Amino acid sequence: MLESLKQQVLAANLALPAHHLVTLTWGNVSAVDRQQGVLVIKPSGVDYSTMTADDMVVVSLQTGEVVEGHKRPSSDTPTHRLLYQKFPEIGGIVHTHSRHATIWAQAGLAIPANGTTQADYFYGAVPCTRLMTDEEINGEYEWQTGEVIVETFRQQGLDPGQIPAVLVNSHGPFAWGKNAADAVHNAIVLEEIAYMGLFSHQLNPDLPSMQQTLLDKHYLRKHGSHAYYGQ
Amino acid sequence: MLESLKQQVLAANLALPAHHLVTLTWGNVSAVDRQQGVLVIKPSGVDYSTMTADDMVVVSLQTGEVVEGHKRPSSDTPTHRLLYQKFPEIGGIVHTHSRHATIWAQAGLAIPANGTTQADYFYGAVPCTRLMTDEEINGEYEWQTGEVIVETFRQQGLDPGQIPAVLVNSHGPFAWGKNAADAVHNAIVLEEIAYMGLFSHQLNPDLPSMQQTLLDKHYLRKHGSHAYYGQ
Amino acid sequence: MLESLKQQVLAANLALPAHHLVTLTWGNVSAVDRQQGVLVIKPSGVDYSTMTADDMVVVSLQTGEVVEGHKRPSSDTPTHRLLYQKFPEIGGIVHTHSRHATIWAQAGLAIPANGTTQADYFYGAVPCTRLMTDEEINGEYEWQTGEVIVETFRQQGLDPGQIPAVLVNSHGPFAWGKNAADAVHNAIVLEEIAYMGLFSHQLNPDLPSMQQTLLDKHYLRKHGSHAYYGQ
Amino acid sequence: MLESLKQQVLAANLALPAHHLVTLTWGNVSAVDRQQGVLVIKPSGVDYSTMTADDMVVVSLQTGEVVEGHKRPSSDTPTHRLLYQKFPEIGGIVHTHSRHATIWAQAGLAIPANGTTQADYFYGAVPCTRLMTDEEINGEYEWQTGEVIVETFRQQGLDPGQIPAVLVNSHGPFAWGKNAADAVHNAIVLEEIAYMGLFSHQLNPDLPSMQQTLLDKHYLRKHGSHAYYGQ
Repeated sequence: MLESLKQQVLAANLALPAHHLVTLTWGNVSAVDRQQGVLVIKPSGVDYSTMTADDMVVVSLQTGEVVEGHKRPSSDTPTHRLLYQKFPEIGGIVHTHSRHATIWAQAGLAIPANGTTQADYFYGAVPCTRLMTDEEINGEYEWQTGEVIVETFRQQGLDPGQIPAVLVNSHGPFAWGKNAADAVHNAIVLEEIAYMGLFSHQLNPDLPSMQQTLLDKHYLRKHGSHAYYGQ
Repeated sequence: MLESLKQQVLAANLALPAHHLVTLTWGNVSAVDRQQGVLVIKPSGVDYSTMTADDMVVVSLQTGEVVEGHKRPSSDTPTHRLLYQKFPEIGGIVHTHSRHATIWAQAGLAIPANGTTQADYFYGAVPCTRLMTDEEINGEYEWQTGEVIVETFRQQGLDPGQIPAVLVNSHGPFAWGKNAADAVHNAIVLEEIAYMGLFSHQLNPDLPSMQQTLLDKHYLRKHGSHAYYGQ
Repeated sequence: MLESLKQQVLAANLALPAHHLVTLTWGNVSAVDRQQGVLVIKPSGVDYSTMTADDMVVVSLQTGEVVEGHKRPSSDTPTHRLLYQKFPEIGGIVHTHSRHATIWAQAGLAIPANGTTQADYFYGAVPCTRLMTDEEINGEYEWQTGEVIVETFRQQGLDPGQIPAVLVNSHGPFAWGKNAADAVHNAIVLEEIAYMGLFSHQLNPDLPSMQQTLLDKHYLRKHGSHAYYGQ
Repeated sequence: MLESLKQQVLAANLALPAHHLVTLTWGNVSAVDRQQGVLVIKPSGVDYSTMTADDMVVVSLQTGEVVEGHKRPSSDTPTHRLLYQKFPEIGGIVHTHSRHATIWAQAGLAIPANGTTQADYFYGAVPCTRLMTDEEINGEYEWQTGEVIVETFRQQGLDPGQIPAVLVNSHGPFAWGKNAADAVHNAIVLEEIAYMGLFSHQLNPDLPSMQQTLLDKHYLRKHGSHAYYGQ
């Protein structure tokens, strides 16, 4: 079963350069096996062109220890662990420095909902975290990165099932989904809406958020019990 | 005859990712057979890489019922149906979320005519619809999307034969043409002029619309009885 | 000898989509044989993917008549003819609607010299023509397009050998060179500097033109008797 | 041993178009052999598609004379030589006109540190040199280009090991690293951060530099004795 998960995580990692979401070795995807209490994640700083399923690292969800694998896991592993612990409905996580999502993160701004492309996947704005404190940065930094994401969702009353991504301030995006492939899917959409939002606001600097009714309509025609999109 | 139309609609749908007009499964193309009273359209949410002519869905122009096909038609089918009913001269329709046309749609702005690239295909600005009302959104949404497009053309006195595209506010573009391939052609041009218009206005924020004489010259050298472009 | 020129013109035309300078069938390249008094040019509105050397059209430089070829020449042929007549040092001409050069043309603005990339190929700003009059547009439009280009160079005291391109207001760029390949080369550079100039001015709206000394240095290290660039 | 260095320099040069950092024949990479007192560099103005290791030129670090090779070295060779002389820790140098780094150089502005992407590779802002004087430009221009780079680092108290790139005002970027491949790596990162910085500042014109603590954290987790990134 972990063989299959490693294959899924490898495929999801390889999808990142294929969709132009990563440069060099940046970015990482993980998936979780909640029954076994482990996550499978990309190794740190390894070239996508030579990566194999065997390079994927199995890490204990609880302790962070490497359970299986001959390489060091991504340095962002603690962020993934914390998100799996606090967001029980998610099965896969993607971190990238994709250009336009990162542009919003660097600017320290949420991506407002301004069109149906966003509404089809995100039930509102994609939030941006507050700046981290010096203590958080100098402490267990990657773990604290997860904490500030969770704090953002809690304080803004957001459901990670309905807003499957976040911008970490001065850093870049994390996206998630029901599995690794779904998380990549959401990371692709995030990059599209980040691009379009950037220039929509340049065309119309006073652009308000989209109508709530239209946001509801598009989100709910693709999600939940009344969905009628797809096969 | 419908076999041939299905092949045309498939080819036109596949042209969308080839021309970078769609991401993932977004976008759809249809074509109409007015004699048989049906339209052929892409199925909803199906991957472009595995799509076959056999996946195309045949829908009654009048009733919206599926006449042939084993998949559900695009959720935007009612918009296509209404446009075919109200715009009798068109034979194919394309809907995409192509990046720059969508940027203008999200900003709620028409694309002014600012150059001969636009004038070669569009006899003036590409209009943007008004926001839809809550009643329209909560009612037969996709059908009402068609209605607001038709209203825009009627109120602004526009000829859909001369302005073969529209921006649906907060959503994205629809383009059309004499058949599916021609509609794709116009969707490609629309994306080009949306890109160029965006940055022309950043360079020159007070840019007026192009001269009417130049607009006439370019549009009419490619269209109508005095055209002298092409073979 | 015209066979060879047709092959060169075909290759130069095919280089346009390869370098992302044209969309669909837009754009055209020609080359001149001054001894025979003819130019060879792309046919009007023909698909790049099926074009052959045999499709190239031979046109009399003096009269504009088709001397050889079974297709209609590009509708822009009169502009090419006039430029060959008035700019005796040039051997090839390219017209495109390449995105960023067209953005400046639509904005009605010259591209100022702001860096050595431009200085390596253009000895100063790339000028933009004035708007054409209604009489010019309604008259021999394509011929008059050439006239307004020549007027721009004459009034601004520019040497077409040193500034191998122009922006036609509300339209797009023409570039030229000692032959068809060289003209394409200059069209590629033009698109690069148009892109970079656009965003350099966004970063620094008060950006002055580059130092004359630096412009001299870079232009003259690649051109003229004191050049020391290349093999 | 120089055979191997020529192969490395060739591979590094070919990586430039592969990563979309150069257009046409622009750009050049060199590497140094400090024991033999020579550098290996791309020839001037040669097409990337036909370049071989044998085309690489070996130049004396001290005198600038060609020691081996049948082609003229890049016209920027004196800049490379001076940087190798003054920055003893570097082993490879890249010069490009990559679009977004050049945009900042043309605007005469440093790229501020605004996110962890930059912090992972650059320990602060990427500086831009002052304008060169007429004397410097008219003198040994390429050598003086090196001098003004070194002056920039000295006056701003920067360590070229920690800030492995510079923007030459009105010109474009130079990047370096421990060898040719590493220099290319840094040139790729530079282009990414130039792109993202450009638009982050458009989204948030008052954007301050990133927190020093976060800059420290990211730079030091990848560099120095406490690094924990990679294998």
